[in-house]
Amino acid sequence: MSRPDDLERMWRDLAPIGRSARSGGYDRSPWHGAELELRAWFRQQAGDRGLAVEEDPFGNLVAWWRPAGTDGARAVLTGSHLDSVPDGGAFDGPLGVVSALAALDLLREQGVAPARPLGIAVFAEEEGSRFGRACLGSRLASGTTGWDDARELVDAGGTRLGDLVPGGAPDGWLLEADTYVELHVEQGRALVDRGAAVGVGSAIWPHGRWRYDVLGRADHAGTTRMEDRVDPMLTVAMTVLAANKQARISGQRATFGRVEVHPNGTNAVPSRVSAWLDARAESDAALQELVAGIERQARERAERDGTTLRVAAESLTGELAFDAALTARCSAVLGGAPVLPTQAGHDAGVLQAAGITSTMLFVRNPTGVSHSPAEHAEAEDCLAGVEALGAVLADLLGEGANGAVA
Amino acid sequence: MSRPDDLERMWRDLAPIGRSARSGGYDRSPWHGAELELRAWFRQQAGDRGLAVEEDPFGNLVAWWRPAGTDGARAVLTGSHLDSVPDGGAFDGPLGVVSALAALDLLREQGVAPARPLGIAVFAEEEGSRFGRACLGSRLASGTTGWDDARELVDAGGTRLGDLVPGGAPDGWLLEADTYVELHVEQGRALVDRGAAVGVGSAIWPHGRWRYDVLGRADHAGTTRMEDRVDPMLTVAMTVLAANKQARISGQRATFGRVEVHPNGTNAVPSRVSAWLDARAESDAALQELVAGIERQARERAERDGTTLRVAAESLTGELAFDAALTARCSAVLGGAPVLPTQAGHDAGVLQAAGITSTMLFVRNPTGVSHSPAEHAEAEDCLAGVEALGAVLADLLGEGANGAVA
Repeated sequence: MSRPDDLERMWRDLAPIGRSARSGGYDRSPWHGAELELRAWFRQQAGDRGLAVEEDPFGNLVAWWRPAGTDGARAVLTGSHLDSVPDGGAFDGPLGVVSALAALDLLREQGVAPARPLGIAVFAEEEGSRFGRACLGSRLASGTTGWDDARELVDAGGTRLGDLVPGGAPDGWLLEADTYVELHVEQGRALVDRGAAVGVGSAIWPHGRWRYDVLGRADHAGTTRMEDRVDPMLTVAMTVLAANKQARISGQRATFGRVEVHPNGTNAVPSRVSAWLDARAESDAALQELVAGIERQARERAERDGTTLRVAAESLTGELAFDAALTARCSAVLGGAPVLPTQAGHDAGVLQAAGITSTMLFVRNPTGVSHSPAEHAEAEDCLAGVEALGAVLADLLGEGANGAVA
Repeated sequence: MSRPDDLERMWRDLAPIGRSARSGGYDRSPWHGAELELRAWFRQQAGDRGLAVEEDPFGNLVAWWRPAGTDGARAVLTGSHLDSVPDGGAFDGPLGVVSALAALDLLREQGVAPARPLGIAVFAEEEGSRFGRACLGSRLASGTTGWDDARELVDAGGTRLGDLVPGGAPDGWLLEADTYVELHVEQGRALVDRGAAVGVGSAIWPHGRWRYDVLGRADHAGTTRMEDRVDPMLTVAMTVLAANKQARISGQRATFGRVEVHPNGTNAVPSRVSAWLDARAESDAALQELVAGIERQARERAERDGTTLRVAAESLTGELAFDAALTARCSAVLGGAPVLPTQAGHDAGVLQAAGITSTMLFVRNPTGVSHSPAEHAEAEDCLAGVEALGAVLADLLGEGANGAVA
């Protein structure tokens, strides 16, 4: 079969898994049915290629290609994740895994003789949609997050992370590698604007999540005079608008995409409204200013409404630049591919921060839409992505100097 | 035992049923555990008093006191409901049932010899918290709502009303009565302002529920530029603030107490936000103006946000005056008790509209708070309510003229 046919077959295998017939989007929450099926599919694909698959104590998978003569050399890693946000797209995550398998096929076809092993990784819970911590699998495997801090995380159904995976100390598989290149669908339109199918990552914007709990007083929606109410919905509504305006003016990002109302009855003034702020900015200072401005406006409105506001940072990731030399090298291998930052967190950022030389390749997204059923990448751009990843891996695998185990 | 002790015992029986240890509020959703326990308790109380209990095809209960010599006379009804809103108070509903049982005891103690039967009714799904239709039991029993329109109603868990009750045509028990007096905790502070423990109802404000569905486009919360978004959360936020402001200025009521976000992920711009408007006003014209004004502002904002707005009326109840002669008679029996309208819907409104002469008695609520764990009535005001209901019932039951079956 030709490479386009191989790719098409893999996408056809994946297409129905976790897809909503109504929206066309995907629910691939980690360690639930659809995501477990994707893991089984990955094991099958790796097995078909003669790769040994290991699962670490946190549910991360890695398939190893260890050609003769690579013993003792430090590995190159590629891969991505298979979980999705609720009602997400087909490409965010799987594109990196599918492209890694197809790039391996390409290297073999081309007769590349690696001087170093290649690992294809599938990281667990990258989206943070089940336990609320993005990049949880890579954080645990790299020791960035300790098991004691993660074991008791509980999902919406009351299941503990510790009930799903054995956990414990990292087993060290990540340390076999000194380089990580993650291919991902672009989640904006920078490549469309530049007319390029593939780009290379330079940095991840600082970003974080803040939980806003606004407490009011439950009351009958019919009988309580407007002036007697303590309605937390008003405080949240004003904060949503303020966040949007501040981010728009400053060219940053601020989103309230998740809201929970208690008791959530049509004829009751709520006693509590919780809302989650996702904020991102081009620098640590800009993020701090944005988040402080939103909180200040929320506090002013809470005072006016008589409500009580509690703000808690759930996660905060500072400025992160990918390895500049690796990024430049990848761009050069790709004939001067554009270099661009991303506003989304990725496992490649966690690995870079943990001391593994990392960067990313991005594949053009015609609309820029992501985390949505409408997320898309054209088949020929996906193929260009496979070829780009193949070229970058061939370059990295051929080099032994950086790869000798000390 | 004395009457205060009897009352205290009934309240002590009811106190733990469906109470949340955390909030102190009640979850007594109809045909679920707690509400079924309350029904069993009611059957037990009726049985202890020698009353026969009937259950109609819609889950409404009625306990009959038919003393000798009342055959052929049309009955007087009292009672209320036992279901609650989510995390509601102890009194909304149960106060009318407990007071009816205690008033019966009082009539018997006083040796009242009724010329007409007395029914104590427990109406099902008064709050509309499970199937979304307030006063569902009384609407079905009175034929105001037909079974064909209700059978397929589905709750949040996918259960159909038709799976819970046999349904069919009304069995006619309501027609045995020509008069209904419902005692209820006041849900505002009019009686506090007037220094009275008990008042009589004059009317129910027109009120309704409207579902706002705002459709946008799901997007990645980090990578999508603010100006490229179609974010339905913004449209809803602005509508919430506009509704509050319009109701405040005009002295009416408008509340968004229920909001559902899809997909409700922290890092995703929502594809859809649904919000429910509860609006009430002193006249049909005022309600129409209020609701039209809110929808107009929502449409303006939707246009600005690029979102699509769909508004659907889920229920609408027009101006309803209780029977003026019955209200005046009750007020006179109670020595000139204050007469006041209510902004809340009640089964008494449904019965009045269906041709049963109806009114209500209200018991003072020191804070006016209702549909909340903080809902309260003082023990001595509850006792005053029982005595008032006893006096009104003694007056109505003694009169045969209006009660002869044609």
